[in-house]
Amino acid sequence: MPPAKSSKGPVVGVDLGGTNMQIGVVSPERELLGESKRKTKSDEGLDAIVTRLISGVEEACAAAGITLRDLVALGIGAPGAVDPIEGVVLEAVNLRWDNIPIAEILSKRLGIPVFLDNDVNVAVYGEYRLGAGVGSKHLLGVWVGTGIGGGLILNNSLHYGHFMTAGEIGHTLILPGNPPGSRSLEHNCSRTAVVDRLVRLIRSNRKSILVKLAEGDIEGIKSKTIAEAFRRKDELTVEVIEETAHLLGVAISNGVTLLSLERVVLGGGLTEALGTPWVEMVKRYTRRYAFPDRCKKVEVVESQLMDHAGVFGAAMVAIDRMNAK
Amino acid sequence: MPPAKSSKGPVVGVDLGGTNMQIGVVSPERELLGESKRKTKSDEGLDAIVTRLISGVEEACAAAGITLRDLVALGIGAPGAVDPIEGVVLEAVNLRWDNIPIAEILSKRLGIPVFLDNDVNVAVYGEYRLGAGVGSKHLLGVWVGTGIGGGLILNNSLHYGHFMTAGEIGHTLILPGNPPGSRSLEHNCSRTAVVDRLVRLIRSNRKSILVKLAEGDIEGIKSKTIAEAFRRKDELTVEVIEETAHLLGVAISNGVTLLSLERVVLGGGLTEALGTPWVEMVKRYTRRYAFPDRCKKVEVVESQLMDHAGVFGAAMVAIDRMNAK
Repeated sequence: MPPAKSSKGPVVGVDLGGTNMQIGVVSPERELLGESKRKTKSDEGLDAIVTRLISGVEEACAAAGITLRDLVALGIGAPGAVDPIEGVVLEAVNLRWDNIPIAEILSKRLGIPVFLDNDVNVAVYGEYRLGAGVGSKHLLGVWVGTGIGGGLILNNSLHYGHFMTAGEIGHTLILPGNPPGSRSLEHNCSRTAVVDRLVRLIRSNRKSILVKLAEGDIEGIKSKTIAEAFRRKDELTVEVIEETAHLLGVAISNGVTLLSLERVVLGGGLTEALGTPWVEMVKRYTRRYAFPDRCKKVEVVESQLMDHAGVFGAAMVAIDRMNAK
Repeated sequence: MPPAKSSKGPVVGVDLGGTNMQIGVVSPERELLGESKRKTKSDEGLDAIVTRLISGVEEACAAAGITLRDLVALGIGAPGAVDPIEGVVLEAVNLRWDNIPIAEILSKRLGIPVFLDNDVNVAVYGEYRLGAGVGSKHLLGVWVGTGIGGGLILNNSLHYGHFMTAGEIGHTLILPGNPPGSRSLEHNCSRTAVVDRLVRLIRSNRKSILVKLAEGDIEGIKSKTIAEAFRRKDELTVEVIEETAHLLGVAISNGVTLLSLERVVLGGGLTEALGTPWVEMVKRYTRRYAFPDRCKKVEVVESQLMDHAGVFGAAMVAIDRMNAK
């Protein structure tokens, strides 16, 4: 890896997902100076992804009024199991990557130090450093969208664990008596699961304004449509969201009870769409089940960085690891 | 706190429970030199407990062929929420203690440094330093007896968390759809829960050799009687134990998935009685549900220190904290 330049220049944060990549240039004062987006197109292979990523970095730099040469480092969050020390993506099913030394690859192309971490870890780290998690030593972040991801800050550091995979709360089992495919948190509380449940209930003749709001495409309802029905107090939607908040609260309270957490940050598409009433519901159930009583003081709060948590978090990972060297 | 003498002399470890206290003198070479036991009798109040504890320490010293003056430190594990830094038992329901500075109290009486931690933490620390957890950086200990307790080693240190209560896996919810009082791991998988289930099934006319083995006192069956029926392949007992191992595996796999744990140590009365076949069952279910696949390599092993884990652990807490100063 090339030696760090002054750690005082702008850094770039990359949030690399299976579908999109989001790129932002962040100033030493933690301001977003410019950004860009690209499709990931994982089926086109590693080289094509890297080329698209670098063109995205160039575009974000141009938007920020700087050049690639002004950058002092790059931070990147990638899905799946990653080795943050070696900068290797160990296994990312939705990128079709297996043992890819992405930090080294990008570092050679850009001539700057590159720091890698898991995508949800990076978003949680962003909240911890700049958003809803500031000041919290023991923090769980839970991102509820198409799936459910999680990340842990323990003793002021990202927790990786032995297999480098810690935080996977979406894959904890909350209904072990259910058949396979409907036992985990993700299978019950992701946006996908919420839509499945709504569709099933509407098909069994439950009335809902969702039928009208979805304009015929009930399987294709988006988070914001669900949020609209929820705001209008549609009975079916409120019932389904309340049960979802209940089960999410069960899984989160289990984390609080096991780890004695101070704070939980909720993010992701469904959280952004449903907003504060949803976060309050999840908080209520989390506190109901947390043990012992003193853990019922746990804070459950909404993401502040929203869909920029990944970009800011990746930038902060780069800044903090560069400064720690 | 009095200054430490040479850290090379014998230390005493105390495992203080709601019913009994177990005391042992441990040499610098980690050998148990002498031990003693006392009833706790928590209803008699703090002073009586402290007096009984000190007479127990004297007896253990006598058995070891030393005097109180030879001791260089005392380590103690107490139930409930404790502050290990300040040496205060914050809240211990079964001792009826609330904010008791037990380390300072014992230190004044004995003239040596005293180090406090939670009782299950201390047992898990014992396994980590001297038993089944040696060499494991990320470790969960689960003690299955009358209740279910747990303790966590993360990054080679006991994990306390924000409210100082981490490790309470027994109070995580595994069957959230059940009525209150039958949702948590402890309510489903402790020895108490296993006996309840066996009694209920026998009352509904299921056949079992337990009726004969228990000699009429079916509600009073002990772990070793259950283990005897299990060894003889009594159909009902095997069915109940298998389901218990399944649910325990669910809760443990959730910890493995969330924390990416390397190893899990099982201890407690039920584990000691049922032995290896039980541990293998729990391992099978833990690995079945752990996510992602790389976490299925998690080791699930039996306690090596058994009912001496608390005494050895308390001694090691004292030795290691004294040396860290």
